Amino acid sequence: MLKSARKLAASSKERKKAGKTLLDGIHLVTAYHQAGGVPEAILVSVSAQDHPEIRDFIHNQPPENLIVLSDELFREISTVDTPTGIVALIRIPQPVDGKVNCCVLLEDIQDPGNLGSILRSAAAAGIGQIYLSTGCVDAWSPKVLRAGMGAHFHLSIHESSDLVAVARNFQGQVVATTLGTEKTLFSLDLSGQTAFVIGNEGAGVSESLLEAADSRVMIPMPGAAESLNAAAAAAICFFERVRQIG
Amino acid sequence: MLKSARKLAASSKERKKAGKTLLDGIHLVTAYHQAGGVPEAILVSVSAQDHPEIRDFIHNQPPENLIVLSDELFREISTVDTPTGIVALIRIPQPVDGKVNCCVLLEDIQDPGNLGSILRSAAAAGIGQIYLSTGCVDAWSPKVLRAGMGAHFHLSIHESSDLVAVARNFQGQVVATTLGTEKTLFSLDLSGQTAFVIGNEGAGVSESLLEAADSRVMIPMPGAAESLNAAAAAAICFFERVRQIG
Repeated sequence: MLKSARKLAASSKERKKAGKTLLDGIHLVTAYHQAGGVPEAILVSVSAQDHPEIRDFIHNQPPENLIVLSDELFREISTVDTPTGIVALIRIPQPVDGKVNCCVLLEDIQDPGNLGSILRSAAAAGIGQIYLSTGCVDAWSPKVLRAGMGAHFHLSIHESSDLVAVARNFQGQVVATTLGTEKTLFSLDLSGQTAFVIGNEGAGVSESLLEAADSRVMIPMPGAAESLNAAAAAAICFFERVRQIG
Repeated sequence: MLKSARKLAASSKERKKAGKTLLDGIHLVTAYHQAGGVPEAILVSVSAQDHPEIRDFIHNQPPENLIVLSDELFREISTVDTPTGIVALIRIPQPVDGKVNCCVLLEDIQDPGNLGSILRSAAAAGIGQIYLSTGCVDAWSPKVLRAGMGAHFHLSIHESSDLVAVARNFQGQVVATTLGTEKTLFSLDLSGQTAFVIGNEGAGVSESLLEAADSRVMIPMPGAAESLNAAAAAAICFFERVRQIG
């Protein structure tokens, strides 16, 4: 068990194949634990054992899941430039379907920081279901996990989804944000079941997905620059709904 | 002139001292030009001269400002990993005071992507004046410029500002977003003169700046994770004001 955990921690390719990922740093590991997750293995560097937060955390973990590595070996496994000294090997949670008041369809989001920020905003807004097109960056990669700040563990993340099919089957209003329309986000009633469609950073929402949507809206931009970051646009959409349902 | 431009392009330290910066890539250079900016020098790599967009652009520029560099030399100067082949040396625009309906105070924003995204959202929302604390990342650094997508050229950016003094002297409502309050952003009338205060990614808004604010509000988060990226929070604030003024 410990041997295979060590092997998985060392190879991102084998990890992926086995449906597992690494959480790097005490913040992510704690967030996973608090959301009820049980890591398959926890890897700690020798010197990190003395870090108060890490010491307290591993004290309450089953010792058979704990692997202490030399600082040198730990550095090789860590996914960040300045290793924090603790990494958890986890099974990527399977998405759960269920009654959905609000969900998000993400098309070809390329930037890990953007995807992480969108997941974080969705979790804060109480949105539970996330559908990602095959062109999105890996939702469980280190950079996305870091930017998500633990949001992953409160969401059902459906990777490699057929977004057009998801939009067509959705039992409510599908809202796509785009530039080429006059209707504004703020004119829309978002209090019912709503699916938000957020498009790629450069290309926006594809034509076929726009066609599958019930409403195409734009975020009004009175300024000189008519341009928003995809994660900023998503946050504005999600929290306009939060405002409306009050 | 050409010699000194080349020298400045090569050394970020000398550039900074001279109050200049580099715009990397045809998108930023074009945005600067469209906003009425005149670069001090335009540096192009030999092979990039054949790129249609770059060729069209440099065709309309005064030839005495144009410096063609070997691809190898250009790579050394470029601030990005995959050089786009065009870089403009510009004087950093001086901020202009003026009648202000809305401004933004940014305290110790550390992540270049976040700062760029906030500037982009501000420019789209029609906010003109930006004040940055000394603890913010350099607003004119390559990563912030890239994430800003040209927003910089539509804003008055006041770096190294005393934010408490700016808040005290502001002739309208100063609104700080924070977690430790019950009052929500959406309950506030933002239609008058408004200054938004956005705090550091980890620490939030400092106590002294919170005290200088007229209203402390939180963004309601009905979800399991009570946490938003600083740039997402800023976008929600700016566009709630856009919604209110209609």
